[in-house]
Amino acid sequence: MIIDAHAHVVMTDECYRIMATLTGGRNNPPTGGKLPPDDVVRRTAEGLIKQMDEVGTDVQFISPRPYMQMHSLAPANVSLAWARYVNNLIHKQVEMFPDRLKGVAGLPQFRDTSPVNCLEELDRCVNELGFVGCILDPDPTEGDGAPPPGLGDKFWYPLYEKLCELDVPALVHSAGCCHPRESYTLKFVNEASIACISLTSSKVFEDFPTLKIIISHGGGAIPYQIGRFRAGASRRGKSFDESLRKLYFDTCLYSQEGLELLFDVVGPDNCLFGTERPGTGSAFCKEWGHDFDVLKPVIEKIEWLSAEDRAKIFEGNARKLFTRAFK
Amino acid sequence: MIIDAHAHVVMTDECYRIMATLTGGRNNPPTGGKLPPDDVVRRTAEGLIKQMDEVGTDVQFISPRPYMQMHSLAPANVSLAWARYVNNLIHKQVEMFPDRLKGVAGLPQFRDTSPVNCLEELDRCVNELGFVGCILDPDPTEGDGAPPPGLGDKFWYPLYEKLCELDVPALVHSAGCCHPRESYTLKFVNEASIACISLTSSKVFEDFPTLKIIISHGGGAIPYQIGRFRAGASRRGKSFDESLRKLYFDTCLYSQEGLELLFDVVGPDNCLFGTERPGTGSAFCKEWGHDFDVLKPVIEKIEWLSAEDRAKIFEGNARKLFTRAFK
Repeated sequence: MIIDAHAHVVMTDECYRIMATLTGGRNNPPTGGKLPPDDVVRRTAEGLIKQMDEVGTDVQFISPRPYMQMHSLAPANVSLAWARYVNNLIHKQVEMFPDRLKGVAGLPQFRDTSPVNCLEELDRCVNELGFVGCILDPDPTEGDGAPPPGLGDKFWYPLYEKLCELDVPALVHSAGCCHPRESYTLKFVNEASIACISLTSSKVFEDFPTLKIIISHGGGAIPYQIGRFRAGASRRGKSFDESLRKLYFDTCLYSQEGLELLFDVVGPDNCLFGTERPGTGSAFCKEWGHDFDVLKPVIEKIEWLSAEDRAKIFEGNARKLFTRAFK
Repeated sequence: MIIDAHAHVVMTDECYRIMATLTGGRNNPPTGGKLPPDDVVRRTAEGLIKQMDEVGTDVQFISPRPYMQMHSLAPANVSLAWARYVNNLIHKQVEMFPDRLKGVAGLPQFRDTSPVNCLEELDRCVNELGFVGCILDPDPTEGDGAPPPGLGDKFWYPLYEKLCELDVPALVHSAGCCHPRESYTLKFVNEASIACISLTSSKVFEDFPTLKIIISHGGGAIPYQIGRFRAGASRRGKSFDESLRKLYFDTCLYSQEGLELLFDVVGPDNCLFGTERPGTGSAFCKEWGHDFDVLKPVIEKIEWLSAEDRAKIFEGNARKLFTRAFK
């Protein structure tokens, strides 16, 4: 089975109209938000599943489109209303195709507000809507102002407690970006790096031994820059590699060189197949003869991976982490 | 010949006393700053050269220790006084060992002030002190407040004009970092990534065809994350690889996996040997049996590099870029 653990919901014009209304009117006064009609939702989900079939993906774990989460847009009410709306949309698609799609929740994070405000929605998504995980934005200010403390800080502990209680993993993934010199796609990469280092230099996994954290986009820069952090850890008599392997990583890197380095450095036990398709990588790669985000054949042609390694990357590790997905 | 194009000056207690006085008193009123006595400077430089001899480095290009540049410490006078002081110290060491050391200037950058304030010191260093290049901090706010525009912006054009006029390269390297969740060493990496993307998506090299820019630390995340940017460029009918090869990269990555990816992705024509030794990588690597920043043997054991490739990385590319170094 091929499980794509990093994918996002496809929305329709009806959804964008709700989003635009929230953006403009700032949900102030609060406005309702009706989901698109069933037939429109079904058609959209069928379109996604057709794309999955074309590339041999059996199941996608779909979460909100990260750069559209509006985590920094005041008031907090916007983020909350939109997170609930998109989670409900995901739920509707998953209900229609329960064997092909699983829900990963967006959280109503807001700027530097404590993540305590996210617990109720996370609980609702997991316990009422059957979601199997959530995404976690390490900088809900979206670069507009001083960010909250790093993910290694106790600031995040109420959320970690809840994740452990519910036994669901979090996929670390930033949202938009307000810095003119840092596009949202570049911020994804930098925030993944910051998250890796904040977590590996913290006591989080001592305090929460069952916590499951996946860093998006192959860990940002860290597997490539590992020597720098190995040297730092070695100076303190520690092993950076050991700390890094408390984390999991997805394969949303769109080059064979990058994927090989990831598998080599963090090991196949810690990697989950993920493509974000359709998304950033949905553009034709001449060299490959298919889109950049068609990663299954790219991983299959890495000869030094064993059949067992590949099975872990494509399926086993996702099953191990997302315990609620297939029960 | 082995040229280490990314190295930093070694300072003494006398220098730290000046730095501490500037930090505390904010150079307000302005205080003088005497260089250490000749015999102390000579002993320090000899210590550095001993380290170079131990690892087979013939020449180091030494610049100010980046995280000690104090680019965000008000008033601007601090950055200016300190840049001049350290440049003078570098000059003194280089004068003592002109065949082993070459000077790379620090600039008196200050927060989001136009780099026009740096032109005089850059000119002094190159024309009066015989320096061969400079370092360039893309975020002199050091993470404290909104950064200036990215390096692709016209904000930086006065500096680029001067660099072209003087025919010296700039090594992009950030300074300290005020964000609790982003150490200076991690900021080095993220700023290298931001610089790569800002420059590759700009018209800078059309407007300054002779400009020579080296991105520190193997380009941050970008060679590893290249697929993401290849996909984006391909969507616009462009080649990201082509844009990336307008830039140069140093080898301050302390893992063989990282180095191989760098050489593979950007090619040996665009890589300059650099170690920062003594610095971040000066810690013992058990696997290698020597420090992480002893990179010559690591590069020599990469079999798929030809002798010609290695010669370019170790010497040829540095000679090509730093035209003032060996005339």
